[in-house]
Amino acid sequence: MSKSTSTTVPAKFSGFAVDKPENWNKAKLVQYDPKPFKPYDITIKVICCGVCGSDCHTVLGSWGPLNRDDLVVGHEIVGEVIEIGSEVTNHKLGDIVAVGAQSDSCGECELCENNNEQYCRDGIAATYNFPNKRCGGYVTQGGYASHLRVNSYFAASVPKNLDVHYAAPLLCGGLTVYSPIVRHGGYDLKDKRIGIVGIGGLGSMAIQIANALGAKEVVAFSRTSDKKEDALKLGASRIIATKEDPDWSKSNAATFDIILNCASFGKGVNFDSFFGALKLGGKYVNVSAPPSDELISLSPRNLIFGGFSIVGSVIGSMKEANELLKLYADNNLAPWIEKVPISEEGVHTVMNRINVSDVKYRFVLTDYDKAFNN
Amino acid sequence: MSKSTSTTVPAKFSGFAVDKPENWNKAKLVQYDPKPFKPYDITIKVICCGVCGSDCHTVLGSWGPLNRDDLVVGHEIVGEVIEIGSEVTNHKLGDIVAVGAQSDSCGECELCENNNEQYCRDGIAATYNFPNKRCGGYVTQGGYASHLRVNSYFAASVPKNLDVHYAAPLLCGGLTVYSPIVRHGGYDLKDKRIGIVGIGGLGSMAIQIANALGAKEVVAFSRTSDKKEDALKLGASRIIATKEDPDWSKSNAATFDIILNCASFGKGVNFDSFFGALKLGGKYVNVSAPPSDELISLSPRNLIFGGFSIVGSVIGSMKEANELLKLYADNNLAPWIEKVPISEEGVHTVMNRINVSDVKYRFVLTDYDKAFNN
Repeated sequence: MSKSTSTTVPAKFSGFAVDKPENWNKAKLVQYDPKPFKPYDITIKVICCGVCGSDCHTVLGSWGPLNRDDLVVGHEIVGEVIEIGSEVTNHKLGDIVAVGAQSDSCGECELCENNNEQYCRDGIAATYNFPNKRCGGYVTQGGYASHLRVNSYFAASVPKNLDVHYAAPLLCGGLTVYSPIVRHGGYDLKDKRIGIVGIGGLGSMAIQIANALGAKEVVAFSRTSDKKEDALKLGASRIIATKEDPDWSKSNAATFDIILNCASFGKGVNFDSFFGALKLGGKYVNVSAPPSDELISLSPRNLIFGGFSIVGSVIGSMKEANELLKLYADNNLAPWIEKVPISEEGVHTVMNRINVSDVKYRFVLTDYDKAFNN
Repeated sequence: MSKSTSTTVPAKFSGFAVDKPENWNKAKLVQYDPKPFKPYDITIKVICCGVCGSDCHTVLGSWGPLNRDDLVVGHEIVGEVIEIGSEVTNHKLGDIVAVGAQSDSCGECELCENNNEQYCRDGIAATYNFPNKRCGGYVTQGGYASHLRVNSYFAASVPKNLDVHYAAPLLCGGLTVYSPIVRHGGYDLKDKRIGIVGIGGLGSMAIQIANALGAKEVVAFSRTSDKKEDALKLGASRIIATKEDPDWSKSNAATFDIILNCASFGKGVNFDSFFGALKLGGKYVNVSAPPSDELISLSPRNLIFGGFSIVGSVIGSMKEANELLKLYADNNLAPWIEKVPISEEGVHTVMNRINVSDVKYRFVLTDYDKAFNN
């Protein structure tokens, strides 16, 4: 049994889909069957969707094969609830909600029961390209689409005083950096110096978040000083241009409590320099996932002699997603976004541009009403 | 100005020295000038000294060149205070003290002032083979010797109810595992499952320590089950034989809060298996230093998707050294040691045997009175 608004839930959803990696930047408008409806599900009429680097990595096949030949990506989704299952208690029809990179988990394990559902080892489903075993292996479809059907638990509530277009990128990019910041630095950063590596989609939000949480200092790291002005406007006190200042590590020795890497993470990362800039017991936290076959190499001696940690983190919990939306709303913050109306052309453009990091600093696909008659 | 006991402080100290890496197992009895006496120093008449794997690595040149041609190693040193400088307040003549792998630090930085002197970045000196810049670059000499002169801060107090031969290995091997256990697990481990990798000198003490701190479970990891009986006697609840049980990681999934690696750490470590056995946010803590040019490789994806940390740790603070000696004394614990009287032959024997890990589980060089007429 489900309830729906006067807005009809269509029998087929519409979305911009890629059929194979060669066509990664040539998405076509297609129709497909929705996920089977479960009593814990809601159906969302999508209003807008952020564009994450993962979308591009996925359609390029960098993280593995495409699990359907009409794959719709997108996991920074904001929309209106137009159908709710009989077991849903956290949302009601007409609510504006936001869904990130996770769309399901077992809901019963110790991790799920303690706001760590993003680390659930059984029953987890990513928002797209993931066979959801709780739904007969249905391969999930993302938010470059008219509608989304999802376990209601994985929809956050968008505060009324937050622009829906700002909410979108917070659900993956924002949450991915917010979670490790609060887990490793706490909710009050007044004694913490935080370094943010990479001024891009994630890094730009990380600078805003660390500031909003009251960090003693937020320092941006970039290879060059090209983005200095942006970094300062976003809230960094200064920028370290690692390629332009070969002595940056020495002149910032033992400075940072946390260095949060939002840039590529793999071959070529000079861990020794980053370790040198960490305080005793400091953490180099990584949230970016390189291609599956890429390994990192580092000298254990330098890790040992400074008591440092290398830490991994993936997205965040729904508790944290709700906190983050409220943080932006309460502090009147706005991620830096570029709006692009959704269409085949629009999706082609954002894919081509995000593939070369040509965005300041997050695309949001908009005008879903026009594209889908939503 | 210094005070000394009726025991004479000799003008030259005597010790068993290696001249070059080719002669790593052919130490000769030599005499050498003591370190210049500083007002914060004490001189110790050595009673016994543990044999650390580092001693062997050092004389083999694995960690860099020998900085003198009469190098005396040994940094698990117990002895009697026979001379004290005018500024010394923590010890008095006749005290029985123990010195580990560190013999000096700046004493003034934030790290030194907060019981993190082992991570001091300026003025640090290892107990042997280290040019001590606070003493005119004097290259430090260790404890396979009649006497040791050292900054008094780096001498722990040996409790009266602890056998001196048990105190020795605690000062490096024991402290190296004690410090990360209490820093990452706390002083009460009743909610923690701890894995100890490698049943050797460090691992055997780590099992005892984790037990003494009340761990919920202490599990020993070894490649084979050869040391099962010892592991259980030491206090492990069970042993995981990683080579004999290829599915060990799956059958121990998400079990451990901390896995403390006391074995070799470098090429060939299967991080993915260890990550699989860690709980969310679990820590793989490493304390063993491979040869300086050896790197580790790992998949960042597995680090990220479990929220895991790889943590480094080196020795411990003097506060922790004193705590550890008290923990063994109060709990009537004894490290498993094999005593060998010190002599050229004795040192040759322990070097040859430790180089092939043929010891259960720590050598202690004894009978200094006979070798040196101490």
